[in-house]
Amino acid sequence: MENLYKIISILGTVAFSISGAYAGIQKRLDWFGVIVIAFVTAVGGGTLRDVFLGKPVRWIHDEALIFIILVSAIIAILFATWIPKVDIPLQIFDALGLGCFYVLGYQRGISENNEVLSSFLLGTCTACAGGVIRDVLLNEIPVLFRKEIYATACLIGFFTFYQIKKISSIESYSNQITIFVIFVVRILSWKFGLSLPQANTNKSN
Amino acid sequence: MENLYKIISILGTVAFSISGAYAGIQKRLDWFGVIVIAFVTAVGGGTLRDVFLGKPVRWIHDEALIFIILVSAIIAILFATWIPKVDIPLQIFDALGLGCFYVLGYQRGISENNEVLSSFLLGTCTACAGGVIRDVLLNEIPVLFRKEIYATACLIGFFTFYQIKKISSIESYSNQITIFVIFVVRILSWKFGLSLPQANTNKSN
Amino acid sequence: MENLYKIISILGTVAFSISGAYAGIQKRLDWFGVIVIAFVTAVGGGTLRDVFLGKPVRWIHDEALIFIILVSAIIAILFATWIPKVDIPLQIFDALGLGCFYVLGYQRGISENNEVLSSFLLGTCTACAGGVIRDVLLNEIPVLFRKEIYATACLIGFFTFYQIKKISSIESYSNQITIFVIFVVRILSWKFGLSLPQANTNKSN
Repeated sequence: MENLYKIISILGTVAFSISGAYAGIQKRLDWFGVIVIAFVTAVGGGTLRDVFLGKPVRWIHDEALIFIILVSAIIAILFATWIPKVDIPLQIFDALGLGCFYVLGYQRGISENNEVLSSFLLGTCTACAGGVIRDVLLNEIPVLFRKEIYATACLIGFFTFYQIKKISSIESYSNQITIFVIFVVRILSWKFGLSLPQANTNKSN
Repeated sequence: MENLYKIISILGTVAFSISGAYAGIQKRLDWFGVIVIAFVTAVGGGTLRDVFLGKPVRWIHDEALIFIILVSAIIAILFATWIPKVDIPLQIFDALGLGCFYVLGYQRGISENNEVLSSFLLGTCTACAGGVIRDVLLNEIPVLFRKEIYATACLIGFFTFYQIKKISSIESYSNQITIFVIFVVRILSWKFGLSLPQANTNKSN
Repeated sequence: MENLYKIISILGTVAFSISGAYAGIQKRLDWFGVIVIAFVTAVGGGTLRDVFLGKPVRWIHDEALIFIILVSAIIAILFATWIPKVDIPLQIFDALGLGCFYVLGYQRGISENNEVLSSFLLGTCTACAGGVIRDVLLNEIPVLFRKEIYATACLIGFFTFYQIKKISSIESYSNQITIFVIFVVRILSWKFGLSLPQANTNKSN
């Protein structure tokens, strides 16, 4: 099971790195800039979580992680024109990463302070903040705040998790089911272009 | 006295959350984005202070705080069109929060390292950085750097504090008087539209 | 030798402060905003490094550093029109600071975890992240990601360092030589307007 998390989180890291790199390429950054954006997209969420917890960030002790991101970013630069052609697997990896990073961040929060609400925030931050930092560095209002369903998927995963906890027969799979639910919500929202309503609907038009 | 701080800091948190939410609504963010902006506006300053001190941030152990922000943001979304009509109480709460957060951050700095200058910076950061992060996320140059008097109010509060310290008869009220001075400076600057001079006045025209 | 680092790092801090202040002045910030930008440009890289390591940031215990930045920023504001005339010494101090901050950050990383790759990242972050935060606050895509050679100079310094380590006769000067190499690369790239290729050259035109 530990291994499954590891594989999913590597797939997620690759997807986050490539999506970050591709965003940087479209903004016409240089090689170095693209690699930095790939890096912050992939590790930004986990970094922020560790910083909020007052701990050293994980990547300074994890050279393999740095290496995976570096290789993903360089591949993205070399084969930039091919990226749109592999959009479907990338979106699948990205959605898997979203679920996996959420669960890892949530578990980390629970193990630190045992509070549900702040652990949900830490999980969502782990899963989503990398994309926010990416957009800030690229001088955009974060897409996460405007249209894409990411955090909502985490929220649905959060509620699912607590429903599952009550059902003893599947309780021991609650983490895996949470990842799966987040994955499905994210994929469906991507496939059908779903988004949250704007907060100022009563003023538009 | 402890209770007075608590009440003022809650009023300040509500005002910061609503001002953050309103800024997000005007940028046409979705519900989730508005709530995030409310959250970072309210806790961003204290978070940055804790991070600078190498400590876990306060809100991960304070579910009540998260809840207050969440409720404030949702109210702001539901009654967005009414927000301009309650501008005066909001500005008053905001100015109270500014003073209170400054004093809390300053005291925290003094208790950590007993250095006056860096404690002033930590206090000002606690009071002002939330607004800076809000503007960065909304893709604006922070209004705090361009026209609004916030940090200057903290600076005046800082000098007042050290003058009061010398007057033994009122010394024990120095924190309360500092909050009051910051409050008055902020309210006056808002009321009369005061701002600092631009740094490049010798080049304009 | 300790003293040489100190002098170089002060020159670098002055240069970073003035370049930050000047960028703020050109964006027509007010006095306070300019001072903040000077501050984050000068200390942002080291702050981020300390935060990543889960340590309190250095400047909260270093009032002399805060004072140097403050004075540099005020001088920059008062003599803003003269700054372009002292571009050559400023670029020299800036390049010295780049080398010195890189080596200090790298050494700090090595002493924390003894891993080469993450120490390189921490060194580069120490040297370069201040400029990134400056550009984010000024609502620009960081110049570091688009054209300027800063991180590449650090990378060349990094490889130089490991080549020198192998030559026993000069091994004890490896830090100084690394600073010098970064300095030369940065000055040459500035003098001749060198930049990295864009990552999307295969798509332009």
